Amino acid sequence: MPSNRLAQQIAFIVEIDKLKQILRQTLLTNASRQENSAEHSWHIALMAIVLAEYAPAGVNLLHAVKLLLLHDLVEIDAGDTFCYDLSGNQSKAERELAAADRLFGLLPPDQGTELRSLWEEFEAQVTPEAKFAVALDRLQPILNNQQTGGASWKKHGIRADQVLWRMQPVQEGAPELWPLVEQIVADCVAAGYLQQASQAESVST
Amino acid sequence: MPSNRLAQQIAFIVEIDKLKQILRQTLLTNASRQENSAEHSWHIALMAIVLAEYAPAGVNLLHAVKLLLLHDLVEIDAGDTFCYDLSGNQSKAERELAAADRLFGLLPPDQGTELRSLWEEFEAQVTPEAKFAVALDRLQPILNNQQTGGASWKKHGIRADQVLWRMQPVQEGAPELWPLVEQIVADCVAAGYLQQASQAESVST
Repeated sequence: MPSNRLAQQIAFIVEIDKLKQILRQTLLTNASRQENSAEHSWHIALMAIVLAEYAPAGVNLLHAVKLLLLHDLVEIDAGDTFCYDLSGNQSKAERELAAADRLFGLLPPDQGTELRSLWEEFEAQVTPEAKFAVALDRLQPILNNQQTGGASWKKHGIRADQVLWRMQPVQEGAPELWPLVEQIVADCVAAGYLQQASQAESVST
Repeated sequence: MPSNRLAQQIAFIVEIDKLKQILRQTLLTNASRQENSAEHSWHIALMAIVLAEYAPAGVNLLHAVKLLLLHDLVEIDAGDTFCYDLSGNQSKAERELAAADRLFGLLPPDQGTELRSLWEEFEAQVTPEAKFAVALDRLQPILNNQQTGGASWKKHGIRADQVLWRMQPVQEGAPELWPLVEQIVADCVAAGYLQQASQAESVST
């Protein structure tokens, strides 16, 4: 019989399969369907490996990859909140804290505490690893939006100034990638995938 | 303008989104649909982190996670070959080599060589990291099969002796997890999720 410790770990591993059912607003690059949070997490973890050379000096890559692999787990209970949904984001913190209690509570206490602290570290965006991880989490959706002709931007009427505001963590967590972000946004505006902010709206932001 | 090097890396990152479209025989734990290879890769990478304490001494966890995150990329061109499909597995190696040429060839040459060698290392199952990674790649589907009442085993008429044969890398790459595998297989046979080998079939295997 496996130990109680291993049984708890396996229960957690089985439970997190549910992240594959959580849909995001981003579409796959072929626009066939919405992306789910598990495959999104895979994508950005592999991005961290491919783009490791642009991480600020001193970033521990394994630590950043851990943050990326588990940063969305709380969505199993709390759902994915669209980043431009202001009212949804007001209740997000409370829903996610309850989710963290339940999900990380499935693990042996020492490991539950450890993984929960990694999730809190990602959310706090203070350590270099968390800043780098958040930068990649922000970058991936604009790559997919570019491939789909701005599908989720158009659906929700998102403007270039909103995207650039949302991308600010790239400037802090992976500054060498910021010119890429500006280039993608400019290309998407030029291609008609993304609305330029109107004069009046620009003044108010 | 981003450098040519970064442009190649971004082209690779965009291309690998296609792994989200590659379907495996395994179902999600709620049996709602087939699992895809991207979310499968996420699941086993996070398993490596949760189950790291069962890795043989000296295993470098970041190295194992890298192997797990990219081990299925060649399926973008070569497709997923069901592990019990003997004829499909005969042509698998050739299809996957051509896929590796194309996909890793999208990257800057130094990085393409590095990531391709990681894929080759996983396939060769010689290093401790590759053995541990392969063990987790084998373990995850039996967890999902147990949750779905043996859905993909029943669909393809897979027997317990075939599963135990398929699970042998667990014995080598993560021996502390082998009793768990035996327990799951025994539980699944007892529950009627998995056929016991018949007397005649047992003799021939």
